[in-house]
Amino acid sequence: MPSPEAITQTVNSYLTLLAKGATDEIVNLYTTDATIEDPIGADVLRGHDAVRAFYTAIQDAKKETELAEIRIGGNEAAFLWHLTLDAGDSRTRISPISVMTFDDQARVASMRAFWSPSDVRVL
Amino acid sequence: MPSPEAITQTVNSYLTLLAKGATDEIVNLYTTDATIEDPIGADVLRGHDAVRAFYTAIQDAKKETELAEIRIGGNEAAFLWHLTLDAGDSRTRISPISVMTFDDQARVASMRAFWSPSDVRVL
Repeated sequence: MPSPEAITQTVNSYLTLLAKGATDEIVNLYTTDATIEDPIGADVLRGHDAVRAFYTAIQDAKKETELAEIRIGGNEAAFLWHLTLDAGDSRTRISPISVMTFDDQARVASMRAFWSPSDVRVL
Repeated sequence: MPSPEAITQTVNSYLTLLAKGATDEIVNLYTTDATIEDPIGADVLRGHDAVRAFYTAIQDAKKETELAEIRIGGNEAAFLWHLTLDAGDSRTRISPISVMTFDDQARVASMRAFWSPSDVRVL
């Protein structure tokens, strides 16, 4: 079981790397057979190649991330966070609630993101 | 699939009934074979009798509830909410992130609450 501190560190690393568009480093936060469901209801992606493709698609967007609230139980975390997208002449914000499970080394074994298009706000 | 509006209504009813300590009405929000894991990592409770016992144990505590953020995807919702407990000479607050799944009638099929004792704040 990973410690709450190790889980929190992985989540913070994830959000920092996401803002940077550091796809390879994000992939390395995931276990090799990890799954992604983002948003909830979308097809479930599995494995490093699928994880890499998912983050490559958004790596060049200019964006900021911020962790708002995190709750940890066992080898899982739920966290509310802000993703601000800067398209030059417009800024939008999505604030998903994401749920992750972790392996013993606090690598991400699964990620599920709760948000919908109706949650997107123009700043 | 329940509508987002129906899911939101169930969540709001749940928090209102929880504040009132209206155990029977809370039980009726759940499907007959529903599960509860609260907090994450605790034994999973299953079925109306177990659900009733869970809420009976806390029904007499004086408390307030407030929905802070809710995100809905498919037949699931994740929401951040505040539970304020008033013990007369002290007030404490826990702000869990809960994840629920719903059946077609927007009844709660499962509830999982992310929080830990370290999240309890004295007001």
